[in-house]
Amino acid sequence: MITTIPIVRKLLAKNEHAASENRARFDGLGVTCVNVLGGAGCGKTALLEAVLPRLTAERRVAVLEGDLATTRDAERIAALGVPTAQLLTDGGCHLTATHVQRALERVPLDALDLLIIENVGNPICPANFDLGEHARLAVLSVAEGEDKPVKYPLLFKGAQAVAISKCDLLPHLRYDLRRTLADIRRINPDAATFAVAAHTGAGVEPLVEWLRRLSAATLDPAAALA
Amino acid sequence: MITTIPIVRKLLAKNEHAASENRARFDGLGVTCVNVLGGAGCGKTALLEAVLPRLTAERRVAVLEGDLATTRDAERIAALGVPTAQLLTDGGCHLTATHVQRALERVPLDALDLLIIENVGNPICPANFDLGEHARLAVLSVAEGEDKPVKYPLLFKGAQAVAISKCDLLPHLRYDLRRTLADIRRINPDAATFAVAAHTGAGVEPLVEWLRRLSAATLDPAAALA
Repeated sequence: MITTIPIVRKLLAKNEHAASENRARFDGLGVTCVNVLGGAGCGKTALLEAVLPRLTAERRVAVLEGDLATTRDAERIAALGVPTAQLLTDGGCHLTATHVQRALERVPLDALDLLIIENVGNPICPANFDLGEHARLAVLSVAEGEDKPVKYPLLFKGAQAVAISKCDLLPHLRYDLRRTLADIRRINPDAATFAVAAHTGAGVEPLVEWLRRLSAATLDPAAALA
Repeated sequence: MITTIPIVRKLLAKNEHAASENRARFDGLGVTCVNVLGGAGCGKTALLEAVLPRLTAERRVAVLEGDLATTRDAERIAALGVPTAQLLTDGGCHLTATHVQRALERVPLDALDLLIIENVGNPICPANFDLGEHARLAVLSVAEGEDKPVKYPLLFKGAQAVAISKCDLLPHLRYDLRRTLADIRRINPDAATFAVAAHTGAGVEPLVEWLRRLSAATLDPAAALA
């Protein structure tokens, strides 16, 4: 498929341009943007359902929900009273910065501290597309098996934080959490890691604190990540 | 991204051509080919590990293992004594018929009844690429959440069979299996469905029997699927 490379480069260049525009807009308004990525069913929406109620008293948050089909995730987030816009990719396997650009009109961007984008459920393609975010949160569930970091390294390489979800299932699985953490650290030694169980709330508070620090330091997110 | 459509059409047309060649080759040799698709960590490899030892006494089977990175899955299958070839997509999110074509030299195709292709872990893109298979087996795990069929309909629409995996976790999850089965039936009323637990072996035998029937009827797979 060597013939596709110029077109892919052109698409990525177009995406980079839109991503830079998004980031400049976020910076101008003092909004921190976090891109949440992970495979289908890794628990991204459930994690946001656990995180958002702990965050919204102190931060003004909105969520963009990326999906191929259905508005189910957006409905779950909107039910928490959080401003939410749905982005349907109509079968597309990832969000682009242009998708995000078009959706920004549908959230109160100038009255936000934090914009969370839940990407399409896919551990591969979304990692190639900068949306203009300041940080990436990669999510993987313990039910996916402990080999996922080495099998999908790009997802973890570009992330500032990794949440290992559904940890309440650990007693019922053959899963070595230390091995997963060691693999993540080898791929990306700088990523913050969080072991969480959205349904019980276990481990959620440190992740909320990470988001708090990140969104308090909007004008210099690099400082918060340091 | 309207400008990308001609390129996508051209790529798909090229893939269709290679897929037809693959299928003609399989038919000529009396090999049934099954394409196994599903998200990362849905348990495709574990399912094959449970299925293959029950199948290899009666059918000559080989496996092509599609992955972005690492040869871990291929090693797991080869450990069962089954001829295995690894296809690394080098970051690509799906297998193409050309990937498969190149790998066919590396399995004993003229001494096979059944060729199983485990696609890249991704519930989206692989569904768009015909590899020349006679049937598709879609896999989803109960740990992914019961909304997956309606969120990733294309995966299920094109499948002749659907395996709902990791059912041994059901007692530990909020999961309505009947709802998932009803959603799958609405999307694809003709698909055979199997609830399985690879680690315990529960529900595996009916799936093995489906593969037996399919590979016994190589020259007319439509009859086996009827």
